[in-house]
Amino acid sequence: MATETKQTRFETLGLGAPLNEVLRVIGSHTSCRSYKPDPLPPGTLEHLITAAQSTSTSSNLQAYSIVAIEDPERKERLSRLCGNQKFIAQSPLFLAFCPDKYRLEYLCKRQGRPFGATFLEMFLLASMDAALAAQSVALAAESMGLGICMVGAIRNNEQEVMDLLGLPQGVYALTGMCIGFPDRTYPTVKPRLPMKAVLHREAYSVEHLEEALCEYDETMAASGIYEGRQVEMPDEPATLDGRIYGWAEHTSRRVSRPETLSEAASLRKNLRKTLVEHGWTFA
Amino acid sequence: MATETKQTRFETLGLGAPLNEVLRVIGSHTSCRSYKPDPLPPGTLEHLITAAQSTSTSSNLQAYSIVAIEDPERKERLSRLCGNQKFIAQSPLFLAFCPDKYRLEYLCKRQGRPFGATFLEMFLLASMDAALAAQSVALAAESMGLGICMVGAIRNNEQEVMDLLGLPQGVYALTGMCIGFPDRTYPTVKPRLPMKAVLHREAYSVEHLEEALCEYDETMAASGIYEGRQVEMPDEPATLDGRIYGWAEHTSRRVSRPETLSEAASLRKNLRKTLVEHGWTFA
Repeated sequence: MATETKQTRFETLGLGAPLNEVLRVIGSHTSCRSYKPDPLPPGTLEHLITAAQSTSTSSNLQAYSIVAIEDPERKERLSRLCGNQKFIAQSPLFLAFCPDKYRLEYLCKRQGRPFGATFLEMFLLASMDAALAAQSVALAAESMGLGICMVGAIRNNEQEVMDLLGLPQGVYALTGMCIGFPDRTYPTVKPRLPMKAVLHREAYSVEHLEEALCEYDETMAASGIYEGRQVEMPDEPATLDGRIYGWAEHTSRRVSRPETLSEAASLRKNLRKTLVEHGWTFA
Repeated sequence: MATETKQTRFETLGLGAPLNEVLRVIGSHTSCRSYKPDPLPPGTLEHLITAAQSTSTSSNLQAYSIVAIEDPERKERLSRLCGNQKFIAQSPLFLAFCPDKYRLEYLCKRQGRPFGATFLEMFLLASMDAALAAQSVALAAESMGLGICMVGAIRNNEQEVMDLLGLPQGVYALTGMCIGFPDRTYPTVKPRLPMKAVLHREAYSVEHLEEALCEYDETMAASGIYEGRQVEMPDEPATLDGRIYGWAEHTSRRVSRPETLSEAASLRKNLRKTLVEHGWTFA
């Protein structure tokens, strides 16, 4: 498999070869945005869902569902709803990870009790359950030689996605995931922030933040990753005034205005409204 | 290692032996709530953080930080804040996974722009980034023969935890994780809902829900898992009236009232207020 020869993040950071096969898979993750048309081997879906269900879940509430889309016409529609990303239609399997309190509300009705988990914690718990399960599925798929790409753009048109997936009140789509055999692999992993920016010992510290940002800016600018992908800021002068276009510049442009966060993230300004209409509460 | 001999979820569900080492680790997860005092091998923390940083992150925003607590006195204080769970003080390493928009706000100031990601999406994106990273760390640790336990109770006293960890505005503790050498291992994994309740083909369906709940109730009641751990409902008759005390009964009791969701989850009713005071927005 092509992934076997890829350099993992452990080697990149000078930690040596991965200590075991799990770390090798974790450390070699890159998002896959081009898929072969090959179908998945029989039983793959069942293995992936078993991986999801093996994951930690808060108080064993299992507050998530997974919708598997394989129908080509439905994948086309999803692709259009998720920012016209062609690889969504191309990949043989699309999974939607859905925080689910419908099932818990159903249980309460069934057992003759009111549903009382109406506060922010329920939303957070269900969203976290779904995210944890998604990451296990990602690693399970990658261990089987498959490529994956998380699709946060599933939240761009949340209401339309809910309609397409037939999600009842109390269920929403947190993230999608494309799964299939990779049509190309990337020789190296994408550089991340230096560890000193993310890891804090005993207490949060900003001591190394500025140093880490400068290092990372250099790394990312040198990687060429932003070439042709710079975020346009129409109401700012075109010149960088000698500043480097690295992660800090790119990312600050993205988060400075909702419409620059992603192609269609301005739509996500409506997310709360859609979720409230769909039974979620943020009290 | 003791975990080598454990039956995984794949075998339990009749899918045969795990297809590879990654699936073996994923499929054999059980939470570890008893740790040996043995310190972690040198370099373990760096390997775990590298696993976290290898994980998918929305738009490469890397909107999370990890606080590592090893100091015994601080772990004692955390243990008290997290529902007096003794294994928190016992485990050699406690990681707090913290959604972090402080760094993104800092970037905006640094690059001379306003911060515009003030809507629910930012909270959700950062929380998801932190959760995805947490699951990679969990599997990385388990691959190295360590046991882990996610600690959602870190949200029970969010303000006090923020104070202890020195979290700046825009950073909060989503979940903790205890990591250490297991003092005991569990021979089998905990049964989950039948797959037909969680997996939906093409669209959400409740067709198999009732059947799945009946099966799961039988399984969980027979497992003895609720013996001595039934949730008390002081304002209800003590009798079950012939109903089985399974997952449906247990879980409906927990989610019917905030104070029964977990030992101290009623405290989590204040979570939104604390987060708002700490710079988070849910618009």
